[in-house]
This record gives sequence, structure tokens and C-alpha cells, in this order.
Amino acid sequence: MTPTHPFDKALELHHSDIRVGHFTGMTSPDYWNMVGPFGGTTAALALQAVLKHPDLLGVPIALTVNYAAALEAGAFDIQATAVRTNRSTQHWTVQITQAGASGAPTMTTTATVITAVRRETWGENDLPMPEVPRPDAVERITIGPSGVAWVRQYEMRPISGGIPAQWDGSGHHSESRLWLRDAQARPLDFPSLAAMSDLFYPRVWLRRAKPVPAGTVSITTYFHANAAQLAEVGTGFLLGSATGQQFSNGFFDQAAQLWSESGALLATSNQIVYYKE
Amino acid sequence: MTPTHPFDKALELHHSDIRVGHFTGMTSPDYWNMVGPFGGTTAALALQAVLKHPDLLGVPIALTVNYAAALEAGAFDIQATAVRTNRSTQHWTVQITQAGASGAPTMTTTATVITAVRRETWGENDLPMPEVPRPDAVERITIGPSGVAWVRQYEMRPISGGIPAQWDGSGHHSESRLWLRDAQARPLDFPSLAAMSDLFYPRVWLRRAKPVPAGTVSITTYFHANAAQLAEVGTGFLLGSATGQQFSNGFFDQAAQLWSESGALLATSNQIVYYKE
Repeated sequence: MTPTHPFDKALELHHSDIRVGHFTGMTSPDYWNMVGPFGGTTAALALQAVLKHPDLLGVPIALTVNYAAALEAGAFDIQATAVRTNRSTQHWTVQITQAGASGAPTMTTTATVITAVRRETWGENDLPMPEVPRPDAVERITIGPSGVAWVRQYEMRPISGGIPAQWDGSGHHSESRLWLRDAQARPLDFPSLAAMSDLFYPRVWLRRAKPVPAGTVSITTYFHANAAQLAEVGTGFLLGSATGQQFSNGFFDQAAQLWSESGALLATSNQIVYYKE
Repeated sequence: MTPTHPFDKALELHHSDIRVGHFTGMTSPDYWNMVGPFGGTTAALALQAVLKHPDLLGVPIALTVNYAAALEAGAFDIQATAVRTNRSTQHWTVQITQAGASGAPTMTTTATVITAVRRETWGENDLPMPEVPRPDAVERITIGPSGVAWVRQYEMRPISGGIPAQWDGSGHHSESRLWLRDAQARPLDFPSLAAMSDLFYPRVWLRRAKPVPAGTVSITTYFHANAAQLAEVGTGFLLGSATGQQFSNGFFDQAAQLWSESGALLATSNQIVYYKE
């Protein structure tokens, strides 16, 4: 059965006969960025390979994705390996490669994933959702046909810290808040949450009001919900917040949070980003 | 030459003849925790293997360490592999293994490291150091001989959020701030900064004022300084701050920052921690 949602199409992986945990896939034109796929999709693919592995234990807890090189449009190979399985946690390494021009495979992406069987415990949120207007009180940004493809796959309603209207060097902070969800309705799951964790544009653009070249080098996302809690969110909005922390000598980090509309902190994410000038 | 500082002893790696990037080492009794080495030392070792690799390009930018199993006291093997070298960035995978009882090696730790040649650019700190009393105005905690070994390797001066004096369930926040440095003076470098990023006790103890079993599963540290900036700090104090974010169903995350005494944000770090009850 061919999936109909563009995100499910982008995440379609075929198990190969080469070895367990080896899959093949195709980059998605729907989630294309400027010089490669949207990094969120790549992160979701690394996670998806683990979730489709026959030896999977539990649900995702942590995902780190390192972008070694931009994927080229076309086919790729992805290998998920369970390097250690404990009683209730499991450690994974993932690698995405593409056949190079010379025939030797090119390493484009490495990732590590931790999955675990969650048990009910005491819980608390020490990072409560900020008070913001509800989604229907915030205007949706419209993205014209000239924009990059992946941005059109998301409904975004910026509350503060939108992309600067004028690149005049007037920036003075690096925090953005917005309501977001898939543009074409799709129930939230771990791969889409992983992708949405990378939805924030580079903080350096906001901080400087200057569109310098920038690209994510590595992202780490922690998942705080189980599958049932994600299913409860369904096709609802998430509140996303992202802030730059330290910008120095070519790299900055940004911290991001994603809450459900009812205020549950579903994921926290950090990334380190290359920038120029 | 045998190193004299306990941290340098703990980080001593011997290049093996098996292959490039393969080293052997010994766990350090000086940095022993309750059921294995202090996780900060393990993180520093993963980084050290990369820094000692003959193909190294640049300085550390990002380090993710996944604790798959506690190392046992004794010898270990560590393999650092440069999986991709670009013009100015380099991507590494690292694995620490120990010879198992059956003779088959046990995977204890996986890590990824990104190194890069830094270039001078515009910079800014959007996470300024909080206003706190200077180190000499804060009392040093004294650690008796009954404490775990690694804690005695650090001078710690807690400003707020010290380990609860009474485990009475009265906790109401999860933030700690303290001045810290090596107990035996040692100039700051990347491995010691990596170790210090893991110096904060589990946030769940503070949040609940209850010492439940807890252990780091994965830590990610971003480095914001180059070697010259670390050398400037020398043997001076760092201000450390750590806060819990979301505690749910057996796992919580904590975010940490390390500033130099003059207010430079040297490293930001996040970890996800297993806890019980």
C-alpha cells in the first residue's frame, strides 16, 4: 500500500535482504530544503529505521543525529544496529550512506538512538508552557511557491520571533515561539515529533537580522511522552519554542521545546549549527 | 612519563597496534562512582581518544556519550573512527568495550564527536552568567572519606540547590548553581570541560528531596571555546548551573551550563537520566 501523506512517503523504508536492520529509501522532493533534505526528515528517518527493526525494545527516549554531508536527491541506504540490549533499555547506532560517484558509499549521517520500556513513576514538568495566545488567535503564515518545499508541509502560526521582515542588522534576541502542526493532518508520532524538533529556522538569522549561511551539524532530541500520549495529541497543534544560547567562531547552539496544546512537554531538543561571517 | 594529576592518569590511553584509533586504558579508582566510573570521566575518555587520533582535524564542537553499561574496574578498549572528514568539520564515532566473562567483548559506551576548524566570526552570548557571589564568598563543601571517590577530585562551592540536607520529600525546584574546579589544580582543557559538564548530581534528588536510584543514560555537550580560551581560564573556577526540565515515567532531562569566572559561556550540556519510583 502506497502511503498518501507526504511525511509517510518520505519515511517509506524497504527492508533489504543484505542484513537485519538494513533498509533502502528515497529522498523526498516534498521535504526538500535548499541543498539537501530538511534535516528533520533525516532525523525522522534515522529513528524510523530503529522503529522498524525487528529487535526493537520499548519507545524512543533519546535521538542524536549528526549531519556529516547533505544527502543528494535519490536513493540511500540506512543501517540500524542494536549495539546493546539491556533489561529495559536498548542502545542503537544508525548510519545513512549513499552510493558515491566512484561506487564507494558516502557516509552522510550518523545517529545514536536510545529506546526503553517506560514504567509509571512520579513525574513533574519544570519547564511549563509559556502563556501564549491560542492557535486560532494567531495568524498562519502563508508560504508562497518560491519558498523551500519542506516549509509548505507545516502549518506555522508564529507568536513571536518570526523570520525578520527586514534584514537590517537590527536583531536583539534569538527566541521564537509558534504554533505548528502538519499542513496535511497527520496524527503525531515519534518520527514526526523528531522532525518538528528541527523546524526552527537558524537562530543566528533572528539574532542578527541577517541571513548568513547556516546549517545544523548535530541535533539531540529527548522524548518525554509515550505512544499513547502522542496519540492523544493526534492532529492537534504543538507549541514550539527555540532560543539561541552561545554564538562563537562559526558555531552556535539552540535549545528548543515542544509542548502539546494542553501544556504537556513532549520533547526537548538541542542543536549545534554552523554559521558564516 | 607517568602523569601525576589523577585526571591525567584516568585519561591515559595507549595506542595499540591493532588499528589506527584503537587504544587501551584502565578505569581509575580516583574517579570511581557507586557502581562504575564517574560518567564525566567516561565522556572525557571518549573525547580523549579522538584528540589523540593522528587524523584529528580542529577542536571539539559536540560530544554525545551513551552509557550502555557500567564499565567494570580494570582494562578497556576504545576505538575512535573518523567516519567523515570535510573541509573544516570532521565526524567521529567512538566505542568503548571490555572483554566479557565469555571472552566476547561487551559494548559499554558509544559516542559521537564532531570536531571543526573554527574561524573568527561575529559572536554573542544569549545565556549570560547569572549574578552570583564570587567563589571566595561561598563556602567549599567538605567531602568525607565515606563519599564516592570522584566527588573528592573536585572543589565545589554550592551557591544554591545543594544536595538536600534532609530527604523529607520537600523539594520544589530542580536548579543548582555552584563554583567548581579540579581539587588538585589542573589547567582547563576539553576533556576536563567534558567531565565537568556531568558534575551535577541527579536533578530528581533535588526536585523530590528523595534519593531515588538514578543514572545518566546519554549526555550531549557543546563546546563554545577554543583551546586558547580554555587556557586563559587556566586553573580558575567555573560557574556551573543545572536544571531539570521534564520528569516522566522513568526518565528526566537536565540542562547545564558552564561559564568562566569572567562570564564566558564555555559549554552547554544536556543529559537524559533514568530514575526509579
